[in-house]
Amino acid sequence: MATTAPQSTSEQLAVDTIRTLAMDAVQHAGNGHPGMPMGMAPVGYLLFSEVMRHNPKDPHWPDRDRFVLSAGHGSMLLYACLHLSGYPDLTLEEIRHFRTWGSRTPGHPEVHHTAGVEVTTGPLGQGVANAVGLALAERFLREKYGSEVQNHHTYGICSDGDLMEGVSAEAASLAGHLGLGQLIFFYDHNHISIDGRTSLAFDTEDVNKRFDAYGWHTQDVDDVNDLAALRAAVKAAQDETGRPSLIRVRSTIGFPAPNKGGTPGAHGAALGEDEVRATKEVLGWDPDKHFFVPDGVYEQFSAVDRGAALQAEWQERFDAWRAADATRAEEWDLAWAGKPLPGLDAALPTFDPADKPKLATRAASHTTIQAIAPFLPTQVGGSADLNESVKTGIEADAPYSREQANRNVYWGIREHAMGAAVNGLALHGGIVRPLGATFLQFADYMRPAIRLSALMNLPTLWVFSHDSIALGEDGPTHQPVEHIAALRAIPNLTVIRPSDAAETAEAWRVAVDEEVEGPVLLVLSRQNLPVLDRTNTYPSAKALDKGAYVLADVDDAVATIVGTGSEVQVAIAAAELLAEDGVKARVVAMPSWELFEQQDQAYRDSVLPPNQPKVSVEAGIHMGWERWVDASVSVDRFGASAAGEVMLAEYGITPEAVADKVRGLL
Amino acid sequence: MATTAPQSTSEQLAVDTIRTLAMDAVQHAGNGHPGMPMGMAPVGYLLFSEVMRHNPKDPHWPDRDRFVLSAGHGSMLLYACLHLSGYPDLTLEEIRHFRTWGSRTPGHPEVHHTAGVEVTTGPLGQGVANAVGLALAERFLREKYGSEVQNHHTYGICSDGDLMEGVSAEAASLAGHLGLGQLIFFYDHNHISIDGRTSLAFDTEDVNKRFDAYGWHTQDVDDVNDLAALRAAVKAAQDETGRPSLIRVRSTIGFPAPNKGGTPGAHGAALGEDEVRATKEVLGWDPDKHFFVPDGVYEQFSAVDRGAALQAEWQERFDAWRAADATRAEEWDLAWAGKPLPGLDAALPTFDPADKPKLATRAASHTTIQAIAPFLPTQVGGSADLNESVKTGIEADAPYSREQANRNVYWGIREHAMGAAVNGLALHGGIVRPLGATFLQFADYMRPAIRLSALMNLPTLWVFSHDSIALGEDGPTHQPVEHIAALRAIPNLTVIRPSDAAETAEAWRVAVDEEVEGPVLLVLSRQNLPVLDRTNTYPSAKALDKGAYVLADVDDAVATIVGTGSEVQVAIAAAELLAEDGVKARVVAMPSWELFEQQDQAYRDSVLPPNQPKVSVEAGIHMGWERWVDASVSVDRFGASAAGEVMLAEYGITPEAVADKVRGLL
Repeated sequence: MATTAPQSTSEQLAVDTIRTLAMDAVQHAGNGHPGMPMGMAPVGYLLFSEVMRHNPKDPHWPDRDRFVLSAGHGSMLLYACLHLSGYPDLTLEEIRHFRTWGSRTPGHPEVHHTAGVEVTTGPLGQGVANAVGLALAERFLREKYGSEVQNHHTYGICSDGDLMEGVSAEAASLAGHLGLGQLIFFYDHNHISIDGRTSLAFDTEDVNKRFDAYGWHTQDVDDVNDLAALRAAVKAAQDETGRPSLIRVRSTIGFPAPNKGGTPGAHGAALGEDEVRATKEVLGWDPDKHFFVPDGVYEQFSAVDRGAALQAEWQERFDAWRAADATRAEEWDLAWAGKPLPGLDAALPTFDPADKPKLATRAASHTTIQAIAPFLPTQVGGSADLNESVKTGIEADAPYSREQANRNVYWGIREHAMGAAVNGLALHGGIVRPLGATFLQFADYMRPAIRLSALMNLPTLWVFSHDSIALGEDGPTHQPVEHIAALRAIPNLTVIRPSDAAETAEAWRVAVDEEVEGPVLLVLSRQNLPVLDRTNTYPSAKALDKGAYVLADVDDAVATIVGTGSEVQVAIAAAELLAEDGVKARVVAMPSWELFEQQDQAYRDSVLPPNQPKVSVEAGIHMGWERWVDASVSVDRFGASAAGEVMLAEYGITPEAVADKVRGLL
Repeated sequence: MATTAPQSTSEQLAVDTIRTLAMDAVQHAGNGHPGMPMGMAPVGYLLFSEVMRHNPKDPHWPDRDRFVLSAGHGSMLLYACLHLSGYPDLTLEEIRHFRTWGSRTPGHPEVHHTAGVEVTTGPLGQGVANAVGLALAERFLREKYGSEVQNHHTYGICSDGDLMEGVSAEAASLAGHLGLGQLIFFYDHNHISIDGRTSLAFDTEDVNKRFDAYGWHTQDVDDVNDLAALRAAVKAAQDETGRPSLIRVRSTIGFPAPNKGGTPGAHGAALGEDEVRATKEVLGWDPDKHFFVPDGVYEQFSAVDRGAALQAEWQERFDAWRAADATRAEEWDLAWAGKPLPGLDAALPTFDPADKPKLATRAASHTTIQAIAPFLPTQVGGSADLNESVKTGIEADAPYSREQANRNVYWGIREHAMGAAVNGLALHGGIVRPLGATFLQFADYMRPAIRLSALMNLPTLWVFSHDSIALGEDGPTHQPVEHIAALRAIPNLTVIRPSDAAETAEAWRVAVDEEVEGPVLLVLSRQNLPVLDRTNTYPSAKALDKGAYVLADVDDAVATIVGTGSEVQVAIAAAELLAEDGVKARVVAMPSWELFEQQDQAYRDSVLPPNQPKVSVEAGIHMGWERWVDASVSVDRFGASAAGEVMLAEYGITPEAVADKVRGLL
């Protein structure tokens, strides 16, 4: 077990107050994770009281240092530090209500729920990659707007568990590659995980050597309780500006609990009343006092005056910066409000079938991106090594590199880190609709990050192409089948699958021009699709924002065919087939269930008439379509390797199959 | 660009035949990935002609070396090697039909579709982790049954893309930890990915140093065309028995194409006729010949005689081993047939509510595991650092460690690698229902591996506990909401959510006792649930294998309430509430949609009567329930941090809510 190095009494008291609050809160709740906050208390104390530039009275100060507790189960470390450093919303009363309904102190930290919490963490590894996104955002804004207005660090604490997860490995490799010098992580090396000692699964690995290999600056602190050593390590990490830093800190989980300290018993359960008492005795505290903050601790810990002074200094620089250039200032304001520059709407491209009768929606997306990029000066993002395929690159801009922060991030073949880092970009502020892109199939690789974007209600943009078996020869490992359904399943995620070029441009507008608050996900085709004549034959695609609309109507229709994306053309052809037989069918384009669900019943009934047979066609599983239609033409098994047209024919995604299904219902 | 080192003419011809077949096949198909097979042709040649112990005439020989092409897009490397080394099913005609409907040469390799293909690969990183699973299986069987019957290597080729993916990082860390000395990977270090040079995103990292940090043995081969250097590296890797080996091989993508070689243009598209001709001219080949195998190449490449001799040697040892111990031999046969030992059925535990009125299904699962473990001597698996929570450990067995291969694998906090390695265990053969377990929430972390288990139709077992908001205080990051629906969405995956202890034991029986061929996924509760009295009050849980059954019936029922898992008790209580009002409702337990879908319409109608109001209750989203019922009591938003009972009450998963929903329909 690590020993306590001598500190000043007031510092020691401040550190130990984190420990006792963590013990008491978990004990009072009856569950939680006391061990990590107790072990890492010195790091929390140093960061919040001394190292970090933050202002408890203004948790939204744009240039504050960011802090990510990647090991989110140690939430009491964060809550104790927020409370003791002076965040007014995080009262002692809230700590007493740790992990209970309605409190500001949920089991894992939740952004937007608790002032001072920057990121929702808990699923391990995510926080490391979120922090990489925060650091990417900071560096981009610093280079774009100047270090006088944006120049802060991103700090984090991660655990053995965080560093076993692949998402953190991907993110660390990228951070090393890009040389994110203002990112500093503490690695809580306590040798304990839920199942026991990390010797069960992890201790062969030399984590610092691994991070060296990624291009990080690495250090060891042999005893977390040695504040002087911690301070020296922080200083060295700050001085290293060309590489991110990892500080491996040897700690003892549950320190200084005399029986459970250093054991798995301190990890994920209350210590028990006896052990809490015994620990307080070891600390020289009165075991009968609970949620006790000794005299002088608030003063020792407070960041209020220091933070206010730091922000005031910044404000002075910022005001001068604003005054010097009104245009730049307006751009800054819009960026922090999450808005594009004025004029984006009018700049949206139109697509004339006379020019180009067929176009993949991924290609229409590419055209749209180029048209609107001037209005999104801080939209940072890119694809996971599929730039040429998903076509999300901004041609007028360069790659985000070690040398220069630009808008096009080359994430590498690291979908999961991409997802979590895009979440970090969104969490930072100042970045409008940060973007991650890959094949729809590989949405699965980054699903935890997509879910967290929805849970955090972040304005992220996910762009996924190659959206069905029609992608062809790459075969079943690459052909999405259940993916659209599985993404629709995530609450608070708006999935849009445009059916042609015009709908694609409109989908982009809906995503970036404030119509949706949370994450938006675009599903695009690999294959060419007819560019519908929106001037003469079909209605404007503006109705996409209602989720579904009548694309082709006919008087006295007896049935409705609903299509999404590339299958809208199949729906149109099916209606034409039926018309040849005198069967009148309406065609509905339904690019987004979620947007349609937000419409009132009258509108929904006007699009999908009740008491009339309705058939859907979508090249994916039919799960959930029962809500909207009576029968579905769908793909309910895995794909195969063959040309796209062959696949569609063999799997029955054809006008004939749709027409037959309609006839069967009449 | 790497240069060609001098080799014997016949060897050079054999290597170059891989190159020309790859070029021609991709050119003929019009799409595919020629560059990797061309660059890595020497490695393919050496492995299949010389290094690997395999028998093309018996691709199922249990002790063959396994080969995993993790970079599955380079499928033509594998197809060319299978063809040239003598696998009879992989004819030149099949290579001509590369990537077309019905061929044995799909875009990415598919196990069970093409003899000699060990693993379906393509989604990057998976293959590395599959190979770790294969090596885990081999070592387990070697230690259990003796090296005279099981003692082979697992070889693989991986790419930059594979090694950027987090899943490979997780798996490599585990393989280093466990010291899997018979695992040997070639890393195709060609500096090119789809978007261009790896300098865009990857080349800061020193991969060998990273693998050193994991505890691997690492080597460099500076020129892939230097067969002598490759041979020396293989020898050194084989000689190192305490650590897995990584051989970083410098190659040139598309070698020796004069214009596109060494460029992204050779990665993922046909080279074009002119470049194919030019490349053949560089090689000194006739540019007018396509799919050409020069004289002597088959002889040079063939593994047929060598393989037959190797297998015959093994067979002799194996026969002696069999003869020496009939019991052991029967166990071996059953293991390779994927079956438990006789008697498992009778050993299943029963649960008496008089002994224990309440039990979490995860706890009932734990009891079941202990009871059936003696009948599953080769069931290898475990949880991702949640052994104490998901309760999948076999108490009578020890951890799978560096020192000894036992049944309990401690995967570490590496869900994705766990999933892919479990797939590898299943692919190997001899391991019955290998198992991966974690919280249901973290199924998202390993979703690509779960999907691949379904696509490959592998007999894997996924066990996920903490299956709803009722898990309580850990909050929304840990509470599954959409997960059950999203897993049901995956084709060919059997999801079972048992409602009580008896159903849990039955679910295990269905999973391990041959009733289901492909992957089975168990969804278990954290919280205690009533142990239903299956002797007096409720019917036997044996009907679980039909997916749904009538749990509590009443004459002249006017409505049906369908529950799954922990909500079956809510359904029962709702029916009791309704009965107090004189409303007669039937209660149906529906542990598995997939099993129920396999029943005939008559049975399904007998359980869920048509033309009668039906209501479901499940603490998850209602998506897809429209197929079975008229209304659902569900959770369609993210959870929160509070006690489980509070969560259920606040989110309306209550008997009152169900009863109200039924009344509303009547």
